[in-house]
Amino acid sequence: MQAFAIGIDIGGTNTVIGKIDRQGRVLQRSALKTAAYPDIADYIDALGSAVLQTIGPDTAACAGVGIGAPNASYYTGEIVQAANLPWKNRVPLKALLEQRLGGMPVTLTNDANTAAMGEMLYGAAQHMRDFIVITLGTGVGSGIVCNGELVYGRDGFAGELGHVIVKPHGRACGCGRRGCLETYCSATGVARTARQMLRRTDEDSLLRQTAPDDITSKTVYEAAVQGDALACRIFAFTGKVLGEALANFIAFSSPEAIILFGGLALAGELLLQPVREAIDRNVLAVYRGRTDLIVSTIPSQDAAILGASALAWK
Amino acid sequence: MQAFAIGIDIGGTNTVIGKIDRQGRVLQRSALKTAAYPDIADYIDALGSAVLQTIGPDTAACAGVGIGAPNASYYTGEIVQAANLPWKNRVPLKALLEQRLGGMPVTLTNDANTAAMGEMLYGAAQHMRDFIVITLGTGVGSGIVCNGELVYGRDGFAGELGHVIVKPHGRACGCGRRGCLETYCSATGVARTARQMLRRTDEDSLLRQTAPDDITSKTVYEAAVQGDALACRIFAFTGKVLGEALANFIAFSSPEAIILFGGLALAGELLLQPVREAIDRNVLAVYRGRTDLIVSTIPSQDAAILGASALAWK
Repeated sequence: MQAFAIGIDIGGTNTVIGKIDRQGRVLQRSALKTAAYPDIADYIDALGSAVLQTIGPDTAACAGVGIGAPNASYYTGEIVQAANLPWKNRVPLKALLEQRLGGMPVTLTNDANTAAMGEMLYGAAQHMRDFIVITLGTGVGSGIVCNGELVYGRDGFAGELGHVIVKPHGRACGCGRRGCLETYCSATGVARTARQMLRRTDEDSLLRQTAPDDITSKTVYEAAVQGDALACRIFAFTGKVLGEALANFIAFSSPEAIILFGGLALAGELLLQPVREAIDRNVLAVYRGRTDLIVSTIPSQDAAILGASALAWK
Repeated sequence: MQAFAIGIDIGGTNTVIGKIDRQGRVLQRSALKTAAYPDIADYIDALGSAVLQTIGPDTAACAGVGIGAPNASYYTGEIVQAANLPWKNRVPLKALLEQRLGGMPVTLTNDANTAAMGEMLYGAAQHMRDFIVITLGTGVGSGIVCNGELVYGRDGFAGELGHVIVKPHGRACGCGRRGCLETYCSATGVARTARQMLRRTDEDSLLRQTAPDDITSKTVYEAAVQGDALACRIFAFTGKVLGEALANFIAFSSPEAIILFGGLALAGELLLQPVREAIDRNVLAVYRGRTDLIVSTIPSQDAAILGASALAWK
């Protein structure tokens, strides 16, 4: 009987490794600095050592290793051109780590998909067969579940809803195109909206106490909580853009719920109310009121490793 | 060994009934006038008689009955508020017909989903696990397959991509909202574009030989084939709007192919070239060149019953 799985979250700054039981309890947690290993061979060696140490002597008790990483493909086990990771081009992470771990099975997928797995096993989506997780962080990601299965698509890269174009000829996006959802509804998108709105008006605002380039979504949130009208309008605009996009996503998969995850989702009703209004105003009648809007309740420091470990149980 | 299945296509004008073998050969075909039965009890009785006659004496050879109909739910077996059918509100079609057929299993889904089933079993999507069928007829419908399964969503109504809003505050749609894909990229959308473009310019065009209200997508097609510049621009515009929408759909499910089906798809390169260009210009880099654009090759008079019969084999 396998007692635990290893969940790994690979981010640009840290790699977090968790030992997690079937009930989703984090038994042990460790980390290493991703950026300290510009050579992938060194990284695999350090990661392998940390994983083996976390597993401990009873390797038969370990169900396997699940990894969430940016730009990762479930099918090929590769990370491809991840802007925030130190290794460029294609990294066959699954194969390299399996070799380092003496054949222990490793499953890899992108980090928004692990968030969806986490919600399905341990979070708001337990018993749901159709739902979408939208991650609202530095960027906007998504994990889509249809008929109880993650949607991977042809190459394992499906579900980049942050890069749906919501405003043709809109804001320049890191992906090289314009008007992606991510440029409006990520934490950085909120900061961009703030700078834009501040430029376009003389209106008094708490946000003017901060240099424009230092404004973050947190600055905007704190001003909005204090009742700052401009900051509240920034959330209203962000929520409207997000809700309009979600109304279109609902026409695709008619999910039971859309689960918002990540820093920006913690803004609560400041964001949720305009999102809900925009969904209701824009969704096709047959779907109206049929999709719940939920904020993830998985503790943020554990969500990524929980979701990654869920992959290993599959 | 079951030798055949019954496929039924319920349209506003006709109901077509086909007897189809496992290889997708149409062994027998009959029809009745949907509109001639305003009372659902009379319709079920007539449809049941026609089906039993089509099945013949050896009922054990029949795998079952599959039906495609507008606004039909796979889960509930109901048709709900179908604007073009004579029965309003909810019609429990599956239950009624099963009763009339003495317990023969009946499966119901919307007509764009049967098109996707038909492509999967007998058409361009054989061996594909991820694809999208877009039906370009009077309206725009869609059937989405992810991981080898039709996407039904919470209530069985998923996949209304014709009602994704592509132009906020755009053209009024029959659904009560504005800017739906269907208002631009259906046959009626093409005619609307024609009337709009003719109003906005004095440019000479073959289309001016037809009264504006009599222009159809066929009028525009015939003018374009003769090299009429305005007619060609109508297709270029239609294809651009469609391609931009498809680029966003690709970010959702990363399909192996998008299969275009229905009258408008027969316009060929007039439509396909601008669609392809708009996809290439708008799709996220990771998906570029990874999704084939295909025109359905299933004979149009058989597609609906073939797809519906495929449901019965599942």
